[in-house]
Amino acid sequence: MLRGCAMENTEQARTLREYLAAEDWAALRRHFESLPVQDIAAALAEVDEAEEAVELFRQLDSEQRPQVFSYLTPAFQAGLLESLSNQEARFLLANIFPDDLTALLERLPHETLEQTLKLLSADTVKQVIRLLGYPEESAGRLMTPHFVSVRPDWSIEQALAHIREESEKGETVNVIFVTDAGGRLLDAVKLKRFILTPPEKRVDTLIAEQAISVPAWEDREEVVRQMQHYDLEAMPVVDKHNVLLGIVTIDDVMDVAEEETTEDFQKMGGVGVLNLSLRDARPSLLYRKRVGWLVLLVFVNIFSGAAIAYFEATIEAVIALVFFLPMLVASAGNAGAQASTLMVRALATGDVTAADWLRLWGKELAVSGALGITMGVAVSLIGLWRGGPEVGLVVALSMFCVVVMGSMLGMLLPIVLARFKLDPATASAPLVTTVADIFGITIYFSIATAILGVTPPGG
Amino acid sequence: MLRGCAMENTEQARTLREYLAAEDWAALRRHFESLPVQDIAAALAEVDEAEEAVELFRQLDSEQRPQVFSYLTPAFQAGLLESLSNQEARFLLANIFPDDLTALLERLPHETLEQTLKLLSADTVKQVIRLLGYPEESAGRLMTPHFVSVRPDWSIEQALAHIREESEKGETVNVIFVTDAGGRLLDAVKLKRFILTPPEKRVDTLIAEQAISVPAWEDREEVVRQMQHYDLEAMPVVDKHNVLLGIVTIDDVMDVAEEETTEDFQKMGGVGVLNLSLRDARPSLLYRKRVGWLVLLVFVNIFSGAAIAYFEATIEAVIALVFFLPMLVASAGNAGAQASTLMVRALATGDVTAADWLRLWGKELAVSGALGITMGVAVSLIGLWRGGPEVGLVVALSMFCVVVMGSMLGMLLPIVLARFKLDPATASAPLVTTVADIFGITIYFSIATAILGVTPPGG
Repeated sequence: MLRGCAMENTEQARTLREYLAAEDWAALRRHFESLPVQDIAAALAEVDEAEEAVELFRQLDSEQRPQVFSYLTPAFQAGLLESLSNQEARFLLANIFPDDLTALLERLPHETLEQTLKLLSADTVKQVIRLLGYPEESAGRLMTPHFVSVRPDWSIEQALAHIREESEKGETVNVIFVTDAGGRLLDAVKLKRFILTPPEKRVDTLIAEQAISVPAWEDREEVVRQMQHYDLEAMPVVDKHNVLLGIVTIDDVMDVAEEETTEDFQKMGGVGVLNLSLRDARPSLLYRKRVGWLVLLVFVNIFSGAAIAYFEATIEAVIALVFFLPMLVASAGNAGAQASTLMVRALATGDVTAADWLRLWGKELAVSGALGITMGVAVSLIGLWRGGPEVGLVVALSMFCVVVMGSMLGMLLPIVLARFKLDPATASAPLVTTVADIFGITIYFSIATAILGVTPPGG
Repeated sequence: MLRGCAMENTEQARTLREYLAAEDWAALRRHFESLPVQDIAAALAEVDEAEEAVELFRQLDSEQRPQVFSYLTPAFQAGLLESLSNQEARFLLANIFPDDLTALLERLPHETLEQTLKLLSADTVKQVIRLLGYPEESAGRLMTPHFVSVRPDWSIEQALAHIREESEKGETVNVIFVTDAGGRLLDAVKLKRFILTPPEKRVDTLIAEQAISVPAWEDREEVVRQMQHYDLEAMPVVDKHNVLLGIVTIDDVMDVAEEETTEDFQKMGGVGVLNLSLRDARPSLLYRKRVGWLVLLVFVNIFSGAAIAYFEATIEAVIALVFFLPMLVASAGNAGAQASTLMVRALATGDVTAADWLRLWGKELAVSGALGITMGVAVSLIGLWRGGPEVGLVVALSMFCVVVMGSMLGMLLPIVLARFKLDPATASAPLVTTVADIFGITIYFSIATAILGVTPPGG
């Protein structure tokens, strides 16, 4: 993911394209070698001509190529696989990490997927099929099956020799897993503890009582939570017999945390989950993800219209009331959006839980009451000026009621959703605002009808 | 931070309180020893009686105490410091990590801060003052000044002996920093590479060309971005002469990423940044953080009222128009909230930048045009049914216009803010909705006045 340094990336892309145009291969390779692979990936993403980007990618040496590939966007990766020769693609796929491979295959369109599977070795295909067998967004999909494990009855010296040998194959070895003969997880031990312990001691002297792990079918959001909670660099993933299957590493988790937050943002904005960068999303996809809520909410808004129709007599009698309609309705929605945003985020970070509702309910009542009084006083002056004392009273009272109502609605809706095991983020600003509108209109005109003494509707 | 496992924490808290009530100290200590420190902290947070929580904390052994303390919320920490004896507090503060200490002191209320500083050693006070000298939310505030560094001319064996010695003091040693005699950063090398290299080789054989670092005054959000971009476990922080001052570790960064996202959520919801958990925030703080935008937006909404007053003649002539007002105004706001949410999040993750505005503008126009047509058709049927063909036409045309207008507004506002180096998240759902309201009302009644041939206002 390229972040915040787009100008630099554009600059880099220009430099690369100049070398390419001049066919100065030596300079291009030297330049590539001086750049971190993440920056190469970011620069390639800024090359608009697909053919040029492929040509530049081809100039990378065999060590950088799989690494750069791992940092490209799924769309770019798919395009690249189609443009490369079978031999090039085969080399590439054989050299990327298994978890990156799973992530890639997950996102490839069907036609490309079939082609790509043919390029993999039988063993790799077996492994990929096993990984893709875990539920979507589960720990199993996220994990890499490569890890270093040692036995409890080995000496530290034996263990270190084994670790050296394994890590030459390129695995992560900050954390070493201790498993029994059946592969069952006993503990995760930091590499530095192996280095600090006298070589003749046994591995089981390093084992603590508390081995933290997650089952392969665990939701990835829960994996993120636990890794953050326990400050883990690598989370062991086990099957139901506690056999170690793989590990989830911290860099995967940071990406997942970002994706999950983006999903929450999109839901809160009343947009379906994109699962794609806004940059790469086609207008047709964006249309589909947005039209649902918009149309649904229009039909919900028929109730707002109906409420207005019901109070037509009141409106016709005191047309000045319409002047305050947008203000009151908007305030109800705004207070609701504030309360729901606070609640959705606090639920997502675990700051509060649905079980806290009673405590939160009382607090929200106090806060929204104070807000309602402030807003009521502010708006009574406008009411007084525009419509006289009676209208001022109607407007102030209505404002107080709609702000409290909107806030309580915004606070309760996410909690109710969480209680029913639904995603609290579904309580989007548009949804809360629209529901608050209906109540707001009804409250406003009811109060107006009562105080201004208009013949009650239908009466 | 306690996340998603509140029931378990409540359970744990109950168990702990039972041991306490029974004064079964041996069992309580055994139980504490079987729990990860993060879970102890989470359980203590669930103990409602402050005195009980302090008493439980006192029963922790001297190794667990500073660790558990680091995972408590700032409010809990402050309370604890006041309840403990000076001797206990002094031991605690001497044994927590320097970055945790800085974070604690940053958040203490003034009275407690003075008391606390008296408990620290002169050296620590000096260190703290230096760290607090860096700007708020900078890399300097986030870093720990403890790290392991080796010289390039040492042998690997020498370096490993030094690393062993240093890490017995309890530092993080997954990444070792190579510095010259003046303390200037040459490179960061993973610990595993030291273990894999023959002991007689020199350290400088491990150095690559690209040492990534950030200056101490760099914004912490940028630190998060770079660590995520380069998949770093520890980011070196340097002064302007490239002298290594400290390191920011991945677990700090995950917490910062979460806090920054929470800030974005709160701004998007039209709430001031809380900088405190919703659980701990007092109603008076919540009131202050919310009242500003609410009152401000009421006054912005006077323009909506003014627009309605301007078209009073039209409304009086065709009162049925009021029926559609909430629907149209809400749709403009909803489309705007969708567009701004997508844009704010994409700008925050670096998925798009302000420089992409032209590409995004065209895309949004296409998407919102399609949305407008869909919504216009949907609502024309309601218009036809409620008010006849002319009203149907007015409503359909207005819907198209307000959806396009709202979307473009929601998309452009965050970009304009970003261009002026302001936080795009200020383009909150409430703000976008309110501004869209004003335009929506004006558009709707202008179209109605024109098509229905009502005497133009004032005419």
